[in-house]
Amino acid sequence: MDLQEALNRMKTYQLKMSAYNYVSGIIGWDAATFAPKASASYRSKMVGSLAEDHLTYQLDPQNIAMLEFLSEKDEVDPKIKRAAKIYLNDIDKVRNLPKNLYAEHVETVSMANRVWEEAKKTDNYALFEPYLKKIIDFSKKALEYRNASSKPYDTLLNDFEEGMDSKSYDAFFDTLKKELVPFIKKVHQDGAPIDDSLLYREFPIEKQKEMVSYLISYLKFDLDRGGVAESVHPFTNPLSSGDSRITVRYLKNYFPASLFACVHESGHALANQQMDPSLEGTGLQDTPSLGIGESQSRFYENYIGRSLPFWETNYPRFQELFPAQTKDLPVEEFHRIINRSKPTLIRMEADELTYPMHIIVRYEMEKMMVEQDVDTKKLPQIWNDKYEEYLGIRPQTDREGILQDVHWADEFGFGYFPTYAIGTAYGAQFLHAMKKDFSVEDAVRAGETEKVHNWLKTHINFFGKFYTPKEILINATGEPFDPRYFIDYLKEKYTKIYFA
Amino acid sequence: MDLQEALNRMKTYQLKMSAYNYVSGIIGWDAATFAPKASASYRSKMVGSLAEDHLTYQLDPQNIAMLEFLSEKDEVDPKIKRAAKIYLNDIDKVRNLPKNLYAEHVETVSMANRVWEEAKKTDNYALFEPYLKKIIDFSKKALEYRNASSKPYDTLLNDFEEGMDSKSYDAFFDTLKKELVPFIKKVHQDGAPIDDSLLYREFPIEKQKEMVSYLISYLKFDLDRGGVAESVHPFTNPLSSGDSRITVRYLKNYFPASLFACVHESGHALANQQMDPSLEGTGLQDTPSLGIGESQSRFYENYIGRSLPFWETNYPRFQELFPAQTKDLPVEEFHRIINRSKPTLIRMEADELTYPMHIIVRYEMEKMMVEQDVDTKKLPQIWNDKYEEYLGIRPQTDREGILQDVHWADEFGFGYFPTYAIGTAYGAQFLHAMKKDFSVEDAVRAGETEKVHNWLKTHINFFGKFYTPKEILINATGEPFDPRYFIDYLKEKYTKIYFA
Repeated sequence: MDLQEALNRMKTYQLKMSAYNYVSGIIGWDAATFAPKASASYRSKMVGSLAEDHLTYQLDPQNIAMLEFLSEKDEVDPKIKRAAKIYLNDIDKVRNLPKNLYAEHVETVSMANRVWEEAKKTDNYALFEPYLKKIIDFSKKALEYRNASSKPYDTLLNDFEEGMDSKSYDAFFDTLKKELVPFIKKVHQDGAPIDDSLLYREFPIEKQKEMVSYLISYLKFDLDRGGVAESVHPFTNPLSSGDSRITVRYLKNYFPASLFACVHESGHALANQQMDPSLEGTGLQDTPSLGIGESQSRFYENYIGRSLPFWETNYPRFQELFPAQTKDLPVEEFHRIINRSKPTLIRMEADELTYPMHIIVRYEMEKMMVEQDVDTKKLPQIWNDKYEEYLGIRPQTDREGILQDVHWADEFGFGYFPTYAIGTAYGAQFLHAMKKDFSVEDAVRAGETEKVHNWLKTHINFFGKFYTPKEILINATGEPFDPRYFIDYLKEKYTKIYFA
Repeated sequence: MDLQEALNRMKTYQLKMSAYNYVSGIIGWDAATFAPKASASYRSKMVGSLAEDHLTYQLDPQNIAMLEFLSEKDEVDPKIKRAAKIYLNDIDKVRNLPKNLYAEHVETVSMANRVWEEAKKTDNYALFEPYLKKIIDFSKKALEYRNASSKPYDTLLNDFEEGMDSKSYDAFFDTLKKELVPFIKKVHQDGAPIDDSLLYREFPIEKQKEMVSYLISYLKFDLDRGGVAESVHPFTNPLSSGDSRITVRYLKNYFPASLFACVHESGHALANQQMDPSLEGTGLQDTPSLGIGESQSRFYENYIGRSLPFWETNYPRFQELFPAQTKDLPVEEFHRIINRSKPTLIRMEADELTYPMHIIVRYEMEKMMVEQDVDTKKLPQIWNDKYEEYLGIRPQTDREGILQDVHWADEFGFGYFPTYAIGTAYGAQFLHAMKKDFSVEDAVRAGETEKVHNWLKTHINFFGKFYTPKEILINATGEPFDPRYFIDYLKEKYTKIYFA
């Protein structure tokens, strides 16, 4: 293959892969936000046909040869080379998989999703158990077909977070456990109590919507290049450099759901809006990894959105919208309430401090499922034991336990969870580095969010997928990942809140 | 090719063509309803790539051979045979067209669309004129590449309305002109005057939305299998048997815009909901022609939605929502107001009676453009002369004249307009036939819209594209198309309104 020929083929490849992504992005967005109930079965047929075309195109030997050629050739533009490598990584996941095995798995997963929903609704783990077993078995078998040199779970961890393996995650989580488990206990036992009943009072949804619009504009999330809709599970859909969408969910009796989903998802969308537009359509216009992606959303949600300076400037608007609920409530107390920590069974409702514990439970269980021969019938008990150990509470039902998350009923679900925790910890390290350049608190208080955007843009997001997570940590903070910043942040924040 | 092989290939073909349609439907929907401003350029690149794949697939010689084989073979299931014929008709439009000519045209049209917008905004026909000239030239050239045996404009007319040609349209429009031009004059000169200032009063949009929801439920448009959104130009998007969507537009100072768009588009959506679900994904799940499609939307909009019985039952809700505006206004008077006829320059604002005149102007001009050598610079004047002749008013600007519609800046735009008029006239013939089976007025007054749905379903919509428009007319009404029903309907209705 000659270089020019390969580059021409690459151009077409990038365009077509972008189109496949765009199409599945739009269809997914539509399904989650607008599509009526009865649209599901036809849509899944159409999506199936498109996925087959996509796969056929990916597995075309001439395309693979071109990608291999470009990923190895020295004189190739580094962006093209990096894109070729990333495309090849994706191909590796399915390349040697027998087609019928994969098709069977897709079908299993599609069923498993529905069964999981039913099982959760009726608190019946026995319904879901055979599907979970099948999914575990498939994941193991699929790993055997890959040319991976690493241990099975390591391969999956690396899929979601390039450069990570169980050794590094073990070290990270051991540190967290050692430092946080006793600290959490101390906070919950000895901290000054916080009356959090405000969180469960009624806040009219129409007014919450106004608060969300207000926050969007405070954050300078550009709506000419994005949008906000509603869905059951909030998510971000970055379709192009001019099109970053988020969804939020409104709960009448739990206003934090909409407010913090708005800030969290805006963080994802802003990261996308900060990317170099010339990466559009190249395969590099994406976050480098799930962890780096989460570092951005959590940065906005936690380090900005749950900070006192943020509310010093935004609480007046909140009070205007909800005068009855916030009467005589000073901003400092409001800040304590929205940051109150307590052991909870549900990850999605966890506070910043206890959140990592929820991830540790899942990480340890996944490792077991992928690397050992576990009896899937016993998983709920193992889950419950771990909650008792790390958070001091025990689920009384499986819907509040092992059935709460959809991830393990998903197509490639194992290895995803740990990125939530490491991403949050990356964020703390970015915050520490940013503070050396300017006062983040002052900027947030003054509504100068563009200062934050600009730092994140120039240090992280502009480059899209060009750098690996490890490279980004070094580029942005001058040192490799260190969980110390995260632990220090949590201890300082929660000491102020509970022991001031 | 053996039959089984052809049938297998057809199955794949139907699935893939359905997926292409689905994708372009979803993307189009999204673009019109949600997508942010800055999303356009990337989207058009993605759509371009998909369109190219689509075209390549259509022009694959093996696919064409299969379609030709199946469309000619006697023992093939008639539904497969009909689908094959329809697919071939679509292919014929582009089959022999040199690729570069077509690509050039697509580019011209994409520019022409934007230029038309600008030209309309600034009332500058000279801007648009060179594009219109190019589009006319392309249409003529494209027709030369087709194996059409008919005259150029006849081929285009038949594309949009199978079985129609200029001879039959001439006869139809001549009858309309002969009967309606003097009648319209009489109504406008001698009819009892109607004060229509109500139409331009302020009706709060939030309340209009409630009225739209109410009408949706009155019409029994099933929202588990559809949805309603907003867009600048109302349209219907029939994605599958479980997914028929409409949009409406809200104007604070012209409430008929949202109300009648709702009923009109619901008519399209209901037709889709009435189709045999087993046609889904076969190429036959669509209206048989634009005219038959329009016969359904106009049926609901005009024959039901602008009838007195409709308002006898729905006006009380309207009064509840708009007490100040409707105080002391009896339903009979309201009915007169929403049906008031006056000569207008803008087709989209025309009443039922003058509407066909707008179409006749366009039909006569298209015929000229496609079949003669017209000087495009002179078209505005020809347009204005015709308005003066048929409606007694003359546009003072081109934005109120020849620049008002986008159709002639579209990819295949000539031949579309006449279907609006013939569709409305089909509708009158269906109404006449339906009345023989039950009292439509009573059903509408009683809110028994399912009776209407059921008639339209069993006589027309259930069969999707299986029958031609001519066959449907015979099946549903027992006779070929006859404009008499339309003329009688208009004369009777407007005599009551203006000369009672």
